[in-house]
Amino acid sequence: MEFNNLSVVLHSPGDLRLEKRHVQEPGPHEVLIQMHSVGICGSDVHYWQNGRIGDFVLTKPMVLGHEAAGRVVKVGSAVKHLQVGDRVAIEPGVPREMDEFFKNGRYNLSPSIFFCATPPDDGNLCRYYTHSANFCYKLPHNVTYEEGALIEPLSVGIHACRRAGVTLGSTVLVCGAGPIGLVCLLVAKAMGAAQVVISDLFPERLAMAKELGADFQMLVKRGDEPQQLAKRVEDMLGEQPHITAECSGVESSVQTAIYATRPGGVVVTVGLGSQMTTIPLVSASIREVDIRGVFRYCNTWPMAIAMLASGKVNVKPLVTHRFPLEQAAQAFETTRQGTGIKVMLKCDPNDQNP
Amino acid sequence: MEFNNLSVVLHSPGDLRLEKRHVQEPGPHEVLIQMHSVGICGSDVHYWQNGRIGDFVLTKPMVLGHEAAGRVVKVGSAVKHLQVGDRVAIEPGVPREMDEFFKNGRYNLSPSIFFCATPPDDGNLCRYYTHSANFCYKLPHNVTYEEGALIEPLSVGIHACRRAGVTLGSTVLVCGAGPIGLVCLLVAKAMGAAQVVISDLFPERLAMAKELGADFQMLVKRGDEPQQLAKRVEDMLGEQPHITAECSGVESSVQTAIYATRPGGVVVTVGLGSQMTTIPLVSASIREVDIRGVFRYCNTWPMAIAMLASGKVNVKPLVTHRFPLEQAAQAFETTRQGTGIKVMLKCDPNDQNP
Amino acid sequence: MEFNNLSVVLHSPGDLRLEKRHVQEPGPHEVLIQMHSVGICGSDVHYWQNGRIGDFVLTKPMVLGHEAAGRVVKVGSAVKHLQVGDRVAIEPGVPREMDEFFKNGRYNLSPSIFFCATPPDDGNLCRYYTHSANFCYKLPHNVTYEEGALIEPLSVGIHACRRAGVTLGSTVLVCGAGPIGLVCLLVAKAMGAAQVVISDLFPERLAMAKELGADFQMLVKRGDEPQQLAKRVEDMLGEQPHITAECSGVESSVQTAIYATRPGGVVVTVGLGSQMTTIPLVSASIREVDIRGVFRYCNTWPMAIAMLASGKVNVKPLVTHRFPLEQAAQAFETTRQGTGIKVMLKCDPNDQNP
Amino acid sequence: MEFNNLSVVLHSPGDLRLEKRHVQEPGPHEVLIQMHSVGICGSDVHYWQNGRIGDFVLTKPMVLGHEAAGRVVKVGSAVKHLQVGDRVAIEPGVPREMDEFFKNGRYNLSPSIFFCATPPDDGNLCRYYTHSANFCYKLPHNVTYEEGALIEPLSVGIHACRRAGVTLGSTVLVCGAGPIGLVCLLVAKAMGAAQVVISDLFPERLAMAKELGADFQMLVKRGDEPQQLAKRVEDMLGEQPHITAECSGVESSVQTAIYATRPGGVVVTVGLGSQMTTIPLVSASIREVDIRGVFRYCNTWPMAIAMLASGKVNVKPLVTHRFPLEQAAQAFETTRQGTGIKVMLKCDPNDQNP
Repeated sequence: MEFNNLSVVLHSPGDLRLEKRHVQEPGPHEVLIQMHSVGICGSDVHYWQNGRIGDFVLTKPMVLGHEAAGRVVKVGSAVKHLQVGDRVAIEPGVPREMDEFFKNGRYNLSPSIFFCATPPDDGNLCRYYTHSANFCYKLPHNVTYEEGALIEPLSVGIHACRRAGVTLGSTVLVCGAGPIGLVCLLVAKAMGAAQVVISDLFPERLAMAKELGADFQMLVKRGDEPQQLAKRVEDMLGEQPHITAECSGVESSVQTAIYATRPGGVVVTVGLGSQMTTIPLVSASIREVDIRGVFRYCNTWPMAIAMLASGKVNVKPLVTHRFPLEQAAQAFETTRQGTGIKVMLKCDPNDQNP
Repeated sequence: MEFNNLSVVLHSPGDLRLEKRHVQEPGPHEVLIQMHSVGICGSDVHYWQNGRIGDFVLTKPMVLGHEAAGRVVKVGSAVKHLQVGDRVAIEPGVPREMDEFFKNGRYNLSPSIFFCATPPDDGNLCRYYTHSANFCYKLPHNVTYEEGALIEPLSVGIHACRRAGVTLGSTVLVCGAGPIGLVCLLVAKAMGAAQVVISDLFPERLAMAKELGADFQMLVKRGDEPQQLAKRVEDMLGEQPHITAECSGVESSVQTAIYATRPGGVVVTVGLGSQMTTIPLVSASIREVDIRGVFRYCNTWPMAIAMLASGKVNVKPLVTHRFPLEQAAQAFETTRQGTGIKVMLKCDPNDQNP
Repeated sequence: MEFNNLSVVLHSPGDLRLEKRHVQEPGPHEVLIQMHSVGICGSDVHYWQNGRIGDFVLTKPMVLGHEAAGRVVKVGSAVKHLQVGDRVAIEPGVPREMDEFFKNGRYNLSPSIFFCATPPDDGNLCRYYTHSANFCYKLPHNVTYEEGALIEPLSVGIHACRRAGVTLGSTVLVCGAGPIGLVCLLVAKAMGAAQVVISDLFPERLAMAKELGADFQMLVKRGDEPQQLAKRVEDMLGEQPHITAECSGVESSVQTAIYATRPGGVVVTVGLGSQMTTIPLVSASIREVDIRGVFRYCNTWPMAIAMLASGKVNVKPLVTHRFPLEQAAQAFETTRQGTGIKVMLKCDPNDQNP
Repeated sequence: MEFNNLSVVLHSPGDLRLEKRHVQEPGPHEVLIQMHSVGICGSDVHYWQNGRIGDFVLTKPMVLGHEAAGRVVKVGSAVKHLQVGDRVAIEPGVPREMDEFFKNGRYNLSPSIFFCATPPDDGNLCRYYTHSANFCYKLPHNVTYEEGALIEPLSVGIHACRRAGVTLGSTVLVCGAGPIGLVCLLVAKAMGAAQVVISDLFPERLAMAKELGADFQMLVKRGDEPQQLAKRVEDMLGEQPHITAECSGVESSVQTAIYATRPGGVVVTVGLGSQMTTIPLVSASIREVDIRGVFRYCNTWPMAIAMLASGKVNVKPLVTHRFPLEQAAQAFETTRQGTGIKVMLKCDPNDQNP
């Protein structure tokens, strides 16, 4: 295929380039996708700035991007459920082995999984991208490409709320009103949560959360005492929340999450902080507050599409900025500065619509 | 106490009387409630017409009514969480023994449970009623008495959807658009169901279901082939439903429910029919479609109140008729004729508001 | 490869032949196995006699056999976890598509799954057999080939008891003391069941069940009243069982299973009978006795191997007859007559040991 | 009643007295029990030495003891399931309120629960003790009083293994081979665990664990690196354990527990350490290793009795010392020194048998 595949490639920390690559021919179980919309994630920015996240270290140039949707332009010989012209959302994680995790339905835990824009695997911030057809999901007519791309962050919220057991009448505390905190809020509400408190350091993020449906906003500041914050949450709700989704990764916030949660409840740790964290483990243990982590997601795309198609969740307000692919540098800089919520790169030069 | 407690008493099949009874003094763990609104349930009508439901047989006069809310007017000496003036919804089932079922959190299965208006236990369709304070739940200011009374049928829907495992993105078939089918619809939507198909013999009931949020309505007629109905459901949804709530108790509908449900899904049998039912058990078994019954409910009032207070569920449209307590005869006749959805009896002569 | 692969091939109902076939070269993700021990299952006999089970109909000659273990003699290029010489147990079901069922960890429900000796897929009752390496599991040194072959029926028991929720202190009724009833007994005990009652029409089968650890045996005869049998079970145990594993598929036995099970308990339908079954659905519903089917199994081989290696389950007494592959006809006739429990065919002419 | 109730009373830290108290008349729902065997728990010793555990502080004299069994000598008027002469095991926690936790089946989390020998509630280390009949469980003939008393520590193991999800084929790491570690070992095995590794600082405790069925023993010493210990566990088992029961409460051991556990597995924190604990939370989160606490237990006595009666669990070897009630001082001193496993006080002067 032609050498016309404009891609956003990270060469080393700080060295982000827009360059042309070869288009990759799809294998029998793959599809070639003309990319339409790709969101920038905090992890993309983190790799750009630091070249690593935990044990994942950039050692060779890597295409960024993993929140993506596009249009199928070529179909592998063994693919049955997709055809040319289908609009699809792309699940970025594709298990490489049928190990115990995959067979058990928790393929996100498979150690050898391929994952877009996690070193050394290339992402899909480019014009043309080839992916396992089994992890491309056809979008209904009433779901836009951008909604399709937003299924990726939405999936983090779905997986977190599902593992936390949010259900009808749950009261929920969400710590952190960044993009992930906001999707946790949206999903918790869609799963029947009665009341959601959301906390953040910045009033403007809380204002956005309020617009998206948060019942209570708690402005916190560095140095606030975790047990006092927990008390404030209880005062707001009139009871302790059943569930806390900790989305900041900050140690004191994890402590607040544990203190705040009702006996028999769940803290789900969505945000990641430093390797070692000091927590009130005795308080969690004797009140049987479970602490459950989430690593990405699995089995979320179909239900996310169902929710978007039925209008049960509205993710459109999350997109606050759009840039054509050629302006990737400005887009990354905008994301780095933390203005707005979600920055979307438009990869199709002939269609820059949502 | 005075002998001024106007009550709706069933003496024998067909013999429903409005008569005065003594007011019962509350014990240490009880409260005396001035009744405000009491809905009439199909089972009330069934006892009136037949004097029995299954093994529960009327052998002495019994006060009817178990969908109820009122105002606390006297408080037992050991009661801490309620006081005079509190507006409360009444959970009609009160376990009498701390048996294995109660200790395990499934007190609805306790064989010796007290239950309003199930022989020989008196109900609360009267002016004043005494009940275990532990099974009276304070209503927030923004929840009306009638909403409080409707928590009882709503609880059937909650328990059914909870046992069925409705969650984000579920597709659901509800068989039967009577009051119970409608609350299953409302609850399924509130728990995140993406699409709900509802079926019934009567177009006007389907029209009401549509107003309440059903995505698809399927008009059925006697003699329709279950496997063909199952196919119609699949065609409407574009897939087989994950969950079916069978609310009619009709044998052919149970068969439809099993055929319609997706492999790995759940049929929850909410409606009750004749003792023996012929079902396609092999079809259920080899597709691992679970068949789960529901007997009333447990642990639903707090979450129902949370949902009503937060506006996540709107049950108000369910009330289509209201009668003062003195017109109980007309109210029962209206219910028997099946016009409208829910008939509400207003027990407080000084306040007939919702 | 050479044309020396002696195989047991079913040509049409009643027409079972021992004939030579080609050895199939393993693909990149496959292994070639020299078969050692293959058990005969009731379904093999059923196909032999009737040419069909439900919707699965023999339309062309098919190799029988799916309870199997052997030795790896050739390894596909992409296989990492196995090497030549490894002794392996073979899981006969291999999903062909990464559909929702596979991704969710319930690959046994995948409609397009490959399954040994289910038409039109060939089984492994032959000298050499090629299979997906991902569904071959290495046997530890202290687990024999025959134990490896018995993992298949054992898996039915594991999947049934797991879906039924057998746990510490469970009381269990097993209806039917054939091979599947016996593995359910073994597995229930290994999962912590306190007491197991087993029922059957034949005293000699109950005697074997007693040897394998059944606490109570209930001899039933045709025409016994289900509710009276349920009462006998309760009298034996001093309580109703939490769980019933119905392994006969007989309608009256399914009825007994439902009546016998404790409120809140589970009936797991392991045996399959006629398409339509008449059951006391109201009794199940109002006591919240769940009815759960099982279709084969998934994710059982690793735990079965762990149990066999640790000596927690002893399946060796199940093998009552052995025949060399050349005597397949006698072996099938023995199984058809129902003498003994499990008939094992020995496929390796140089090693006929267990 | 007479003033002849010899009791072990803690007056203040270090001040343990054997003194006579009044026998308490049973209320309508209570039974009076002549105590037979009462085990000494680490918490009894801790109160004796320190006068407090966490927020529970001794402020007035309190009878110690909560691992107990005895014989009913008087029955309250409303008690149906027990009669004089019944041998019973006593569950020491009795919920005082029908709060949400009790109704949901998690009564151990009820904040107002009565609990023997937790200040200010008296325990049952005495001649005669009065308790809620609903929390006394009749012992079968083949279960001894001492086994009945040991149901209390056994319940900790049951609750821990149940919350951890131990099932058929699980591999389990137990950190700490004290009495609680040993019951976790026994219960894990009874629930089907294939292999259990147990760790401790003392070889003699590991030797006892080996006798009780541990598959591997890991001698640790202070200062061992958690990640290296985790590696040793994996090397022993040939895989990472699915579940770790941390029974020491030591910070480094909690760290080992998290590192050692397989992705998707569970760490159950049974031991309690200092309020704040530093853990590798990121490692737990990204591998979805759940951290679940246990607070005492609920709904364990019936299944424990079933297990003891059926011989599935043998707790008898846990009793290493016996003293008559009059020698309580020596008994407590023996426990404090940590020799042996379980010290049993014999409260019935006429029957000092097990």
